[in-house]
Amino acid sequence: MNLDTFQITTKQRVDSGLSKAIESLPNHADKLKQAMHYALLIGGKRMRPFLVHATGNMLGVASADLDGPANAIEAIHAYSLVHDDLPAMDDDELRRGHPTCHIKFDEATAILAGDALQSLAFDILCHYPLSQDHKRIELMRILSQAAGYNGMCGGQAMDLAATDKTIGQSQLESLHNKKTGALLIACVEMAISLAEDVSPKSKQHLLNYAQTIGLAFQVQDDILDVTGDSRTLGKPQGSDQAQNKSTYPAMLGLEQAQTYLDQLHQQALQALRALPYNTQLLVSFTDFVIHRTY
Amino acid sequence: MNLDTFQITTKQRVDSGLSKAIESLPNHADKLKQAMHYALLIGGKRMRPFLVHATGNMLGVASADLDGPANAIEAIHAYSLVHDDLPAMDDDELRRGHPTCHIKFDEATAILAGDALQSLAFDILCHYPLSQDHKRIELMRILSQAAGYNGMCGGQAMDLAATDKTIGQSQLESLHNKKTGALLIACVEMAISLAEDVSPKSKQHLLNYAQTIGLAFQVQDDILDVTGDSRTLGKPQGSDQAQNKSTYPAMLGLEQAQTYLDQLHQQALQALRALPYNTQLLVSFTDFVIHRTY
Repeated sequence: MNLDTFQITTKQRVDSGLSKAIESLPNHADKLKQAMHYALLIGGKRMRPFLVHATGNMLGVASADLDGPANAIEAIHAYSLVHDDLPAMDDDELRRGHPTCHIKFDEATAILAGDALQSLAFDILCHYPLSQDHKRIELMRILSQAAGYNGMCGGQAMDLAATDKTIGQSQLESLHNKKTGALLIACVEMAISLAEDVSPKSKQHLLNYAQTIGLAFQVQDDILDVTGDSRTLGKPQGSDQAQNKSTYPAMLGLEQAQTYLDQLHQQALQALRALPYNTQLLVSFTDFVIHRTY
Repeated sequence: MNLDTFQITTKQRVDSGLSKAIESLPNHADKLKQAMHYALLIGGKRMRPFLVHATGNMLGVASADLDGPANAIEAIHAYSLVHDDLPAMDDDELRRGHPTCHIKFDEATAILAGDALQSLAFDILCHYPLSQDHKRIELMRILSQAAGYNGMCGGQAMDLAATDKTIGQSQLESLHNKKTGALLIACVEMAISLAEDVSPKSKQHLLNYAQTIGLAFQVQDDILDVTGDSRTLGKPQGSDQAQNKSTYPAMLGLEQAQTYLDQLHQQALQALRALPYNTQLLVSFTDFVIHRTY
């Protein structure tokens, strides 16, 4: 299967799974339900679900077993965007070409929608039909670590602390390894934990791959904030700069940031080449992350 | 063991457990870590941990097995207070006699601290030493349902929707059954799920008890908002009224609200009398909830 087909299939799987998860909720808090639906389903590249499915598919895991991790991680990602966009955080009004959740609804509803989406992520993992039920708790462990202080939330706090400050490249990297990397690594870890007989070496290559792709994603994100246009991005171009965020182009200059991105690209492909699997989908995915324009 | 001793022991257990959970975190996001610690440890009645331990103790569950549920539910409760106090929600500056988290730190940090505390709750349940490991996933299921749209978050959204509106008593009850009741019911459900041989009848009486005590807690909370004083409450008296919230005294009048509280008290004791266990601790706990002044 090529990247496009797999990407479309995965997007349909995750959209349908998340849509059902919301629609099956009772209607006692209608506005909150709508806000959760909005946050989950107004678009998005579905990169994380793709990474779960592509990795799991490569390792021989049944797609149905991968739906829970894919949807749960996307719910965590969606909640983090809702909270990051809040006035007290990045104060963004546009996301994926649409009004952000607190603009479309209101701030209180956006806070609650984020909170409820985080619970939903754990709820999905707890309840989805999984053929290897004994592995469920391991999935929960991976998610709770990746989402919390040791992962995404901690990274976001480091990002806040770094705003308006000069930080070094290693500090910027450690920030992004948590803020973006932790969830991407969790995608791969979850797929591995559902697979049979992945050698420690292969596991390490895959984790390296996920970490590298996380950094590459961030470098390209920073570059797009300088070179992209708001319509394609679906959010205002230049907002990092406006908020005085620490970025790779600001630290290295645009050209050096591009060179660094190329290095990360090669490093990610090298990790894949070391694997005894058919890595075609992950190779295409890597190209997509590096060359994306939105 | 009498109520006071058990309450003190439980408070020490939960304070020490939560304190260790935070202190064992690395220091990459110091301010966030401090805010999480602050939100968890500036006080609180520890009612939920008490209910977990008292119910489990009555049912013969080892205390060490109850620590995970008790601490996890307290972490969920603490995060919900941090988010409820935010300017976009109840906009409260005082909680438990101290500045609220966003006043002590800042709004962005308070949002993140709440988020990270929710992840921490699931993390605690995933990782705490549990002698009956096969029951762990059931604990996670109970928590994810009680915390999310079907429980606390949904109830909070119903509360927001009811502000500035006239709602009926059954609507107010259904709101509180979710907003406050869901976590209290989860306390009892978790303790039951760790116990052996609890009959379906006993289980039903215990769940009824938890739901009744949840409502009683709320009615007393509403009464204290009218009759209490800010110093004992640790938060501004009259804030419900100021925010035009739906409350029992506003709906029934103060005297009728008091009568209703007495009815709930009797109903809770009746549920306990129907149990074939030594309910002494839960009886004292019920009296405490009804007669508390803070």
